Amino acid sequence: MPMEAIKWLGDRVRVLDQTCLPAEEIYLELSCYQEVASAITQLKIRGAPAIGVAGAYGVALGALQIKATDKDIFVEELKAITQALASTRPTAKNLFLAIDRLWQIAKKGGDVGQIKQALLDEAVKIHAEEAEATRRISQLGVGLIRDGATILTHCNTGALATAGYGTALGIIKQAKDESKKIKVLVTETRPLLQGARLTAWELKRADIPFTLITDSMAGYFMGRGEVDLVIVGADRIALNGDTANKIGTYSLAVLAKENDIPFYVAAPTTTVDPSLASGDEIPIEHRSPDEVTHIQGLRIAPDGINVANPAFDVTPHQYISAIITERGVIKEPYGEGLGFP
Amino acid sequence: MPMEAIKWLGDRVRVLDQTCLPAEEIYLELSCYQEVASAITQLKIRGAPAIGVAGAYGVALGALQIKATDKDIFVEELKAITQALASTRPTAKNLFLAIDRLWQIAKKGGDVGQIKQALLDEAVKIHAEEAEATRRISQLGVGLIRDGATILTHCNTGALATAGYGTALGIIKQAKDESKKIKVLVTETRPLLQGARLTAWELKRADIPFTLITDSMAGYFMGRGEVDLVIVGADRIALNGDTANKIGTYSLAVLAKENDIPFYVAAPTTTVDPSLASGDEIPIEHRSPDEVTHIQGLRIAPDGINVANPAFDVTPHQYISAIITERGVIKEPYGEGLGFP
Repeated sequence: MPMEAIKWLGDRVRVLDQTCLPAEEIYLELSCYQEVASAITQLKIRGAPAIGVAGAYGVALGALQIKATDKDIFVEELKAITQALASTRPTAKNLFLAIDRLWQIAKKGGDVGQIKQALLDEAVKIHAEEAEATRRISQLGVGLIRDGATILTHCNTGALATAGYGTALGIIKQAKDESKKIKVLVTETRPLLQGARLTAWELKRADIPFTLITDSMAGYFMGRGEVDLVIVGADRIALNGDTANKIGTYSLAVLAKENDIPFYVAAPTTTVDPSLASGDEIPIEHRSPDEVTHIQGLRIAPDGINVANPAFDVTPHQYISAIITERGVIKEPYGEGLGFP
Repeated sequence: MPMEAIKWLGDRVRVLDQTCLPAEEIYLELSCYQEVASAITQLKIRGAPAIGVAGAYGVALGALQIKATDKDIFVEELKAITQALASTRPTAKNLFLAIDRLWQIAKKGGDVGQIKQALLDEAVKIHAEEAEATRRISQLGVGLIRDGATILTHCNTGALATAGYGTALGIIKQAKDESKKIKVLVTETRPLLQGARLTAWELKRADIPFTLITDSMAGYFMGRGEVDLVIVGADRIALNGDTANKIGTYSLAVLAKENDIPFYVAAPTTTVDPSLASGDEIPIEHRSPDEVTHIQGLRIAPDGINVANPAFDVTPHQYISAIITERGVIKEPYGEGLGFP
């Protein structure tokens, strides 16, 4: 049975709580936009494409919550709802794009009842499009993986992160579907351990051989010639190909370049931000120090100390061998090839 | 009051249990070589220079435990003791060197009573020499740190790791002693968190400003130009300067090179292995998968998965700007400059 990270149930959205994995598989039913916003903030739903889909459902749910029948009042109230959802997390482009798509529809047309239905339809459409995009990415990207390859990946980019088939992890699963004999090196991805908790859980379910390592071990295996390629996802891609992704991605890209290992980014075009010429402009989320000083509530460092916790870093395009979107395997110069969603 | 990681008490050795820090400061009194071996294996004592000192006291204690008065029997029994102590951990050179120094004395001379005393004297001498070497390293290395510098360091290389003043962390403490305004970026050092647990604890005690980061964040700060230099310790150094140190060191060295940041190794010459031409020959310890899948007993990954856990990696000498030993700040070509202990 395929796992569905996000599922629309007609009047509410069901999500698999990613903070409880792998210990427990707990499904949450969110019936108002506030619950969706809170689930995104708390990382119960995470991964750039998945929070785009969740944000869209959040707006649709928010619209259903509005009692006003006057269109101007409705639009005003909806505006506040879109702002609340857009302020949950700052880096992933998909969230803002999905919310804006629904906002444009709300402003455009019909009476309030029609708008509510149109928003719902659009959210479902966004979900379907994102799922389809990850299918295409997987099919296009699998050509980069030779039989017998060892692939290093970072963070989680599978069904959990995309509400679809996956981006980097989608390509890896596609290789398995095509009976390529692959092995995966999974970085645990501190501080929140999305690799150890989520990617390990997805790969185990998919019966794909993998080895879990700490983030600091990636260089060891690259230096020994035991990694054939690196594939990661993305949270925002600038027009020149500079890519924001989970903290630690830049280090992996530098290590890959130093060891002549191809380094690929896989993401739907909804992750591309056509308003940004380069990665310097991508806003980086800084999260709570507790994520570094504690692991699942357990203190691992002295109290009263300074901590930094940037959740993402930016990998300059020079380190990226190709970006795989649903439109193709795109190489430098990026710009036009990345297209606009 | 200065903290003493290892202290000889006349007929037993007292050590600060590093597995309990920073939550608890627990001192253990070890009165037989088996307890010393066990403390090294379990990382209650860790850090290449510190386990050298502990190994020496272990041999001296083992000699006291032998009841035989016949020298041949004594030497035979002592041989088994040195072998047990030498098999505790494979990578740090200091351990083997210290044990061998005592073994040469045992083989040489006098009656059993005289040998026992000579071994004890030699262990105390090794401890004093190692402490003095770290003092010299700190004084020699401090010249590399300009006022206002931000220093990135990895793992723990202070009083805990050296039973002296420290190597990399000794240099950092010396800069503070000389009133240089410095800041330190401390990598947490997964899997066993020696940075988060031990270096953070030592820096807090020394009142040196620092910021704790995950290992994956080092590249982020280097890429932003926020790191002026990197200093780390070493577990074994080959004649060409290739250096085995805590897993993750190689990644930091590559990132430093890519960002034109000086990368220094600080270690006493007892860490140099004159029998090895290059780092390829350094044996790398692989430790229990549990260290990766669990943090202080808490499971953080699915069960029944493959895990790799190399405890060290080797940084080729090309990435090292200089090696600081008690003999000086040594640059390429290393060989002779490193000297033999």
